[in-house]
Amino acid sequence: MKTQDELKKIAGYRAAELVDDGMIVGLGTGTTVRYLLDALGERMKNEGVHFTGVPTSKRTADYGSKLGMTIKSLDEVDQIDITIDGADEIDPQLNGIKGGGGAQTWEKLVAVNSKQCAWIVDESKLVDQLGKFPLPVEVLAYGHHQLVKRLADLGYKPTVRQTADGENYKTDEGNLIVDLHLDRIQAPYDLADQLSNMTGVVEHGLFLDMTQTVVVGTQDGAVVKTK
Amino acid sequence: MKTQDELKKIAGYRAAELVDDGMIVGLGTGTTVRYLLDALGERMKNEGVHFTGVPTSKRTADYGSKLGMTIKSLDEVDQIDITIDGADEIDPQLNGIKGGGGAQTWEKLVAVNSKQCAWIVDESKLVDQLGKFPLPVEVLAYGHHQLVKRLADLGYKPTVRQTADGENYKTDEGNLIVDLHLDRIQAPYDLADQLSNMTGVVEHGLFLDMTQTVVVGTQDGAVVKTK
Repeated sequence: MKTQDELKKIAGYRAAELVDDGMIVGLGTGTTVRYLLDALGERMKNEGVHFTGVPTSKRTADYGSKLGMTIKSLDEVDQIDITIDGADEIDPQLNGIKGGGGAQTWEKLVAVNSKQCAWIVDESKLVDQLGKFPLPVEVLAYGHHQLVKRLADLGYKPTVRQTADGENYKTDEGNLIVDLHLDRIQAPYDLADQLSNMTGVVEHGLFLDMTQTVVVGTQDGAVVKTK
Repeated sequence: MKTQDELKKIAGYRAAELVDDGMIVGLGTGTTVRYLLDALGERMKNEGVHFTGVPTSKRTADYGSKLGMTIKSLDEVDQIDITIDGADEIDPQLNGIKGGGGAQTWEKLVAVNSKQCAWIVDESKLVDQLGKFPLPVEVLAYGHHQLVKRLADLGYKPTVRQTADGENYKTDEGNLIVDLHLDRIQAPYDLADQLSNMTGVVEHGLFLDMTQTVVVGTQDGAVVKTK
């Protein structure tokens, strides 16, 4: 029986094969992406593969640099060939929830500027319906009490994410994260539209129609799902 | 012939009568609002009217405090009774464009949390169709080159707002303003929805179905339009 960590490694190493020489590659954030970066580092060393990485967080930028990768910001490249990132939940239509790590806005910015996207996950992230994982919504700090009240009135059970010290968690942009405890998201497109149109919402963690490929680490090895 | 400044003063002074004793009042930003604040200050002194002001900018907070107003932030009040603010363009349906001053996100946050809204303008702000005034869009700095490219591809003629020193203008939230030079906005609701759904857009300056009352300063005095 493989551990969850071993399944993540299987997914990360398999996804590294999606990168071709000369590509501009969006690099996600998280524990599964860490394995992807290790695998890409090995391909650079062993096969002489060269690519430019566009990171979605400082953490990924630092780790990639340490492995010798060329790192550029989103504004320094024309277009990204492929973005490889983790996800917190993925449904059978390959729609997903991201943002458990609080970085979903930069992750989505990189994703929407990519020709294609792949997610790498262990098999526990595959669900029949999205929503068990709390949906992260990045919001402006100013007026957020009012916004939380409106989200509560809608029945979305919002909680403002806290740090271990009991302070409000701050994103890279200096905003707050509100987690919606929805349990089941019956109409993800309607919800995405509603949240995007709410004043004070910067971005939400629903990633719909963004990913064409999912690489899953399973007990039987890597399984690649495509749309 | 009255000057534009005199027309603004007429609108600001007339709108001050919309405030009743004990109200919580959202206070906009700009030159016309300055006259409103003066008029409210006089009503406090002469009539003993008391109210709580919720400002949409530091400038308004400072000026209101100087006049002796009780000032609270949006998060310190339950709900706002009325918000009175300026506008850059208003069409016959009382939809408008705001954000010439770069404060539209806080202005919209205060507006959506108000039971009713009134705009105060001189008559030059009334138009048959929105769009001659460049539409301000607040965007995240990260990845904004990509977003500007997408807006240009859509034919929206975006320009990144600059300060007099040639630096990018920064909002109170630390974001950038992109002005869209549209000339005519044929379908404001569709455009609002499209912009809200674009990753990287924090908020746009289209204020649709938000205002019930417009107080216009004209050569013949104040004219009040209601929806």
